[in-house]
Amino acid sequence: MSFAKLDALGRKLEALEHAQAILGADEATHMAVGGGEKRAEAMSVLAGMHHRQATAPEIDDWIAAAETESLNEEQAAALREFRRHHANLTCLPAEFVERQTTARMRCEQLWRDLRGKNDWANFLPALEGVIALVREEAQMRSEATGLDPYDALMEQYDPGNRAAEITPVFTDLKSFLRDFVPEALAVQQERLVRTPLKPLSGDYPIERQRELGLAMMAAVGFDLTHGSLAVSHHPFCGGVPSDVRITTRYRSTEFLSALMGVLHETGHALYEQNLPKEWSHWPLGKARGMAMHESQSLFVEKQLGRNPAFWQWALPEVEKHLGEAWSIDDILPHVHFVQPGLIRVDADEVTYPLHVILRYELEQELVAGRLEANDIPEAWDARMRDYLGLSTVDNFADGPMQDVHWPSGAFGYFPSYTLGAMMAAQQWSALKAERPAIDDEIATGRFDTVNEWRRAKIWSQGSRHSTPDLLERATGERLNAAHFIDHLRARYGSS
Amino acid sequence: MSFAKLDALGRKLEALEHAQAILGADEATHMAVGGGEKRAEAMSVLAGMHHRQATAPEIDDWIAAAETESLNEEQAAALREFRRHHANLTCLPAEFVERQTTARMRCEQLWRDLRGKNDWANFLPALEGVIALVREEAQMRSEATGLDPYDALMEQYDPGNRAAEITPVFTDLKSFLRDFVPEALAVQQERLVRTPLKPLSGDYPIERQRELGLAMMAAVGFDLTHGSLAVSHHPFCGGVPSDVRITTRYRSTEFLSALMGVLHETGHALYEQNLPKEWSHWPLGKARGMAMHESQSLFVEKQLGRNPAFWQWALPEVEKHLGEAWSIDDILPHVHFVQPGLIRVDADEVTYPLHVILRYELEQELVAGRLEANDIPEAWDARMRDYLGLSTVDNFADGPMQDVHWPSGAFGYFPSYTLGAMMAAQQWSALKAERPAIDDEIATGRFDTVNEWRRAKIWSQGSRHSTPDLLERATGERLNAAHFIDHLRARYGSS
Repeated sequence: MSFAKLDALGRKLEALEHAQAILGADEATHMAVGGGEKRAEAMSVLAGMHHRQATAPEIDDWIAAAETESLNEEQAAALREFRRHHANLTCLPAEFVERQTTARMRCEQLWRDLRGKNDWANFLPALEGVIALVREEAQMRSEATGLDPYDALMEQYDPGNRAAEITPVFTDLKSFLRDFVPEALAVQQERLVRTPLKPLSGDYPIERQRELGLAMMAAVGFDLTHGSLAVSHHPFCGGVPSDVRITTRYRSTEFLSALMGVLHETGHALYEQNLPKEWSHWPLGKARGMAMHESQSLFVEKQLGRNPAFWQWALPEVEKHLGEAWSIDDILPHVHFVQPGLIRVDADEVTYPLHVILRYELEQELVAGRLEANDIPEAWDARMRDYLGLSTVDNFADGPMQDVHWPSGAFGYFPSYTLGAMMAAQQWSALKAERPAIDDEIATGRFDTVNEWRRAKIWSQGSRHSTPDLLERATGERLNAAHFIDHLRARYGSS
Repeated sequence: MSFAKLDALGRKLEALEHAQAILGADEATHMAVGGGEKRAEAMSVLAGMHHRQATAPEIDDWIAAAETESLNEEQAAALREFRRHHANLTCLPAEFVERQTTARMRCEQLWRDLRGKNDWANFLPALEGVIALVREEAQMRSEATGLDPYDALMEQYDPGNRAAEITPVFTDLKSFLRDFVPEALAVQQERLVRTPLKPLSGDYPIERQRELGLAMMAAVGFDLTHGSLAVSHHPFCGGVPSDVRITTRYRSTEFLSALMGVLHETGHALYEQNLPKEWSHWPLGKARGMAMHESQSLFVEKQLGRNPAFWQWALPEVEKHLGEAWSIDDILPHVHFVQPGLIRVDADEVTYPLHVILRYELEQELVAGRLEANDIPEAWDARMRDYLGLSTVDNFADGPMQDVHWPSGAFGYFPSYTLGAMMAAQQWSALKAERPAIDDEIATGRFDTVNEWRRAKIWSQGSRHSTPDLLERATGERLNAAHFIDHLRARYGSS
């Protein structure tokens, strides 16, 4: 049976992915500093083995034959995802992939070196090379999928996401935020004048912060028998569903940033830990995509973790572990602090979408050939002034050189962040409609209703549906910016 | 060129071995408890990939063709080891290996369960099955190598070791130890009557003990940019030469056992870290074998770490990290404590060889068919009484059920431990003949002379020579029990 061959192949690929995932997490947490060169060699050989096995010529025949076999509903769903994955993997010629890998690696290395030096001129030629190849890639993916070129790029990260559906939603959101950011800032300023910010400073031993993080993880549903918390330079969620590795980083002078990082990664981890285990060796058993994954992390970080009800429960926990009593009125202004800035990854939830929309707009023009790399700094500066009132003239490092995505060739990925934020708000809103008293549960540290809802609607579904379909099945409607807008209004507005 | 094909194959196998080694170390240190099942699946698939690639039918032809190619001296040496490895891997039929793997795994699982229950009767049938297969294996290995069956088993662990050479050396050692153990105990008793043992107890925070261990590791030559120290249930040295993972376990009530464990594993680690890097993807670049590896760990633990000169330097380090001042006269009686006991892994360096010789004698008879599994307990008890004056009648758990080696089918391995101890003493004696003032260096914490000698004589040689040849080249003579005997006399005797 050909489906059985795909099934067996899935187990082999899963084992290689297991090794790659654990080695990847290990590299960022426990690897000796001098171990990198040999690790890179091993990873590259493993990646080659995975690619060779996943793209073996006979797989096309197995898929075609399996489509004629009598399959149950799960197997048929699995086969659809096998086909989609396989098409994604094989629609670019090997010769092109090699050229592109070299160009991306060179550009990313240059970026690491030149960003700190604010050196756009020497970075530009490499970026131009990457963009030229992305245009070729989008064309080839477009031909293979029948999608528009930019949609064909997004399709890798979030199957079913289409610019035609996203652009109007982003346009609504942008027009709202242009007025709302000044409003939120005015509200915040008024409050700060009445009640100055209690400084977020102190002396919090890292071991105590770690214990607090572990207690919060466990409380919101992280299974500590199938995962762990470590330290790394950049927080991440890695490993495998049976052993999810999340990390954070600590500053001994304040506890909030490490804790919010732990909550964010815990959101990713919950998705991974609760995927259908019996499908773990099929593409069908994987998380749906980047936007849905981000919606799970942002659900925990923003919808739960920045919810005032959450802090009613959390503050006594903080006191228990760190020995310091904060009042709700002292902590919330930090948890909800809004400040327009140049750097996306440091942005609050109000201004963050404008960073993403800027990139979404520019990268569509870059892929379409309506914008050239050389013109990025000017276009970037114009939009930053327009959206956030900030200039990046001659400040490439904090402008178009701040992210790794473009140097590494990941065009079509940026929208996932804000789609995730909107989808999280939409999920929260649907859940709240079903369970109006959910805040009371959260205020007493009970997250089982929240998690049961998400397990049923999202986690247990694996990759059974496209991103927009999964959202619609979970919330009863297509992507709708109104939920996110309402969320921001309620939390940051002048009410 | 066929040699180039073997070279390329070596790089692939090295990558898989890298993954297996890091995943193995990770499993014992950082893996979540619930991650074991998926990890076992992944490890088994990786082992299968490694085995398939390492035993591909075309490799025989590559080796044969490479032997006709013009190779430099290094390549010729590499080819010899390729051939030896390949013969080891392929001399057993796949059908036999599968049967044996099943029998070993079942017996080892039973052993884990039944040892604690002292249940020999239910363990016996599984052990009989393993022994029957070991006899078959020894016969097949004998036919493939032209060696005696037991030699053919040892050959896997220590190429070149032959019972005909080892038995007389072990016989000398045994006859010496029968008189010497009582002598060492009498000397110790006499001293204890004069000066009672200062109890090895206190309160030593684990973080401080860890810092002490790291300081000692670094001092004796461990490269902390290419390795690390973690905690595991059983101490081990794992990982890869570019990133050696050693572990220990701590008790907060005393510091000596964790520290001696760290020194032992550091000895293994130094060998791995100093193997020739340019050969790392060839069998030639691997450590020579189990006995030589053990000689490196015991060199650091026994020849250095239990040398009084070492403690002159080490005690101020202990005081610096643990805040407690021990005198040489208080610590040495612990470092040199002798106590005959039933358990091999807990034995001191004086009584340890008798445990090994007992096993060496019995397993030769088992392999030859002169002893059956059913008769092991009686034979074990008789020798324990004879060698150490202790009985194991009806005490299977602390008798023939104490080690994992036989249940897991590792016959021919035990001699490596005592060969390692003798080879370490012989190396120390050769070094001391060249550098008579070496104790003075050690007493001031200088280990560079020691390490330069070992790097030149042992570490840099990889698997270039057989075990006995490597020893002879390093020390100027064949294995000679006199060095170990002199070492024990000097440290524990009445003189």
